[in-house]
Amino acid sequence: MMTADPPVPETRVLAVASHVVSGHVGNKIAVFAMQALGCDVAALNTVQFSNHTGYRQWRGTRTSAEEIWDLYEGLKQSYLDNFDMMLSGYVPGAAAVEVVGRIAEELQARVVSRPGSFFWVLDPVMGDNGKLYVAQDVVPAYKKLLHHADLILPNQFEAELLSGVKIVNMATLEEAVQVLHEHFKVPHVVITSVSFSQPGHPVSSLSVIGSSMTSTGRARTFKVVVPAIDCYFSGTGDMFGALMVVRMREAVARDAAAAELLQRRAWLSDDHVRAVDLPLARAAERVLASMHEVLTKTCQGMEAEMKRAGELLDRRGVTGEEERAKAMHLLKSRSAELRLPRNVHSLRSPEIEFHAVKI
Amino acid sequence: MMTADPPVPETRVLAVASHVVSGHVGNKIAVFAMQALGCDVAALNTVQFSNHTGYRQWRGTRTSAEEIWDLYEGLKQSYLDNFDMMLSGYVPGAAAVEVVGRIAEELQARVVSRPGSFFWVLDPVMGDNGKLYVAQDVVPAYKKLLHHADLILPNQFEAELLSGVKIVNMATLEEAVQVLHEHFKVPHVVITSVSFSQPGHPVSSLSVIGSSMTSTGRARTFKVVVPAIDCYFSGTGDMFGALMVVRMREAVARDAAAAELLQRRAWLSDDHVRAVDLPLARAAERVLASMHEVLTKTCQGMEAEMKRAGELLDRRGVTGEEERAKAMHLLKSRSAELRLPRNVHSLRSPEIEFHAVKI
Repeated sequence: MMTADPPVPETRVLAVASHVVSGHVGNKIAVFAMQALGCDVAALNTVQFSNHTGYRQWRGTRTSAEEIWDLYEGLKQSYLDNFDMMLSGYVPGAAAVEVVGRIAEELQARVVSRPGSFFWVLDPVMGDNGKLYVAQDVVPAYKKLLHHADLILPNQFEAELLSGVKIVNMATLEEAVQVLHEHFKVPHVVITSVSFSQPGHPVSSLSVIGSSMTSTGRARTFKVVVPAIDCYFSGTGDMFGALMVVRMREAVARDAAAAELLQRRAWLSDDHVRAVDLPLARAAERVLASMHEVLTKTCQGMEAEMKRAGELLDRRGVTGEEERAKAMHLLKSRSAELRLPRNVHSLRSPEIEFHAVKI
Repeated sequence: MMTADPPVPETRVLAVASHVVSGHVGNKIAVFAMQALGCDVAALNTVQFSNHTGYRQWRGTRTSAEEIWDLYEGLKQSYLDNFDMMLSGYVPGAAAVEVVGRIAEELQARVVSRPGSFFWVLDPVMGDNGKLYVAQDVVPAYKKLLHHADLILPNQFEAELLSGVKIVNMATLEEAVQVLHEHFKVPHVVITSVSFSQPGHPVSSLSVIGSSMTSTGRARTFKVVVPAIDCYFSGTGDMFGALMVVRMREAVARDAAAAELLQRRAWLSDDHVRAVDLPLARAAERVLASMHEVLTKTCQGMEAEMKRAGELLDRRGVTGEEERAKAMHLLKSRSAELRLPRNVHSLRSPEIEFHAVKI
């Protein structure tokens, strides 16, 4: 059984990211995750592809920068731009990134007399594991609009690209976070996957590092360590972002200082609040609990599905070695799609717990 | 509290319909409704508009017939065309309708040796209340592919267009259903809104008429009467279709003859099964219960929202009479958007009940 009440009050979110017909990445996963938690989501799709690019083959079209802006104008002219929050993920190309920044800027300007009534969660999707998968000019495009974001969710590589700090250990990681707060004026930062080895951690664990800055721009850094799952998934970053939108709003609304916090720019806690007591820490804990449950279930289902993959290929007469290897990659990609719709319970009421700790 | 278990076994659905950034019509409502009930939904969007056309102004682009086919080819080449069911709604233009028919035909042909393992729910979106809102050539395009559909969901006007029978009373309605079964070979038909007056019905009620044909193509007609709600909504047809996909599969799986039914083309019940005992009747009852709850809640929220509309326009300085009338129409359209994400409970476990009766 799960509770019928959504964790957040009525929340209207603009979600700007990619759409795939089949599978669960980008807006395809983010929109459902936020809706399942009770948000009214406006989904502006930056591409429509048959499937995600990890399959190594796909069909479909991109939405141009002009089309993105045009859709936003369509919302504006009909009083549909009344957003409480915005989540932006994969945006194809620097021109489109710039347009998304303009949208956020406008939405912010509209409520300048009511601080705290608009909050932008920006996932600066650029690459992973040292490899850029967007055009070079996307990096400076993101840098230019960072100061409009309330919370950014780079992975380790993206944090390096934005901050200019090479992250090799906890000290350089904290340095990167400090640069993002101080130089780029980003109030909240979560680095979504940290892959350097840390003393005292099991190898098979994954760290998420977060910080909400003080009034003087100093980092307050916490980490949440979760056991790693030995499967390769796509869409985890998109799911993380969507859940952070909901859980951040929930954590702020439940905070002891909520009445004040919600009317403050970027919902920034007082300076005396310790890192592990931040709403950002509460949110990250909830999000990671949900993610761990969904990923565990996906990994289990994946094994069962791959057992049947050989039979399927026999039945379809796929016999050549090369052809079969390609087909196995496709079937593996399919089986690794996050199993969200059948695990709504894990989204709404995750049972396990992870706790934020001071670094 | 609601149960955490989805009502259907793992079900993979291809949903082909329109996408709106803001609001809840077409795939925007259908995909969430099916996902919330546990389906793995592939969403092929036939348009991306800022909002539905009932606002009388919108921005965005259509997906061409070629692009729709291309996306489907993208699914095929990566083993992503393993669908159990398909739901098709608004498709822009005759060429695109034809392509959707080709997709359904292919998916059907693929499982010809395993009858019952693919089921197409077709909502032939063409118009309402005597008014066509697609091009003239869409009507014959739908007629041509009707015989591939397992279940069709026309409203009264669309049933007239397809059957060629003018529906003015229950006798002509049954005649239209008979034509759809016999001439167009459609196994299951639900006419989603019947507006002629019927003896013994309160004026403020709405009838849904359904029939599953016998082995000789005879109609078995039942009706479900639900109290009407005095609000104008968009997207009700799309929500109805999405819920019928899930509830039809559920009803068939729970039927006493399930083991056999699920391996029969179109899941057609034996001839001795009475109209009110059909899985189609069970499905329609569940769907209408959910719809009645969501529409009731939407209508309540709408009143509250419209009370604040005047203030909003004052604040934005909208004063001219014509400008204000236009703005009020837009705000009313916005407030009438179906409130789905906050009423998942009504989708999964509706509390009220409506019962199918013989005509």
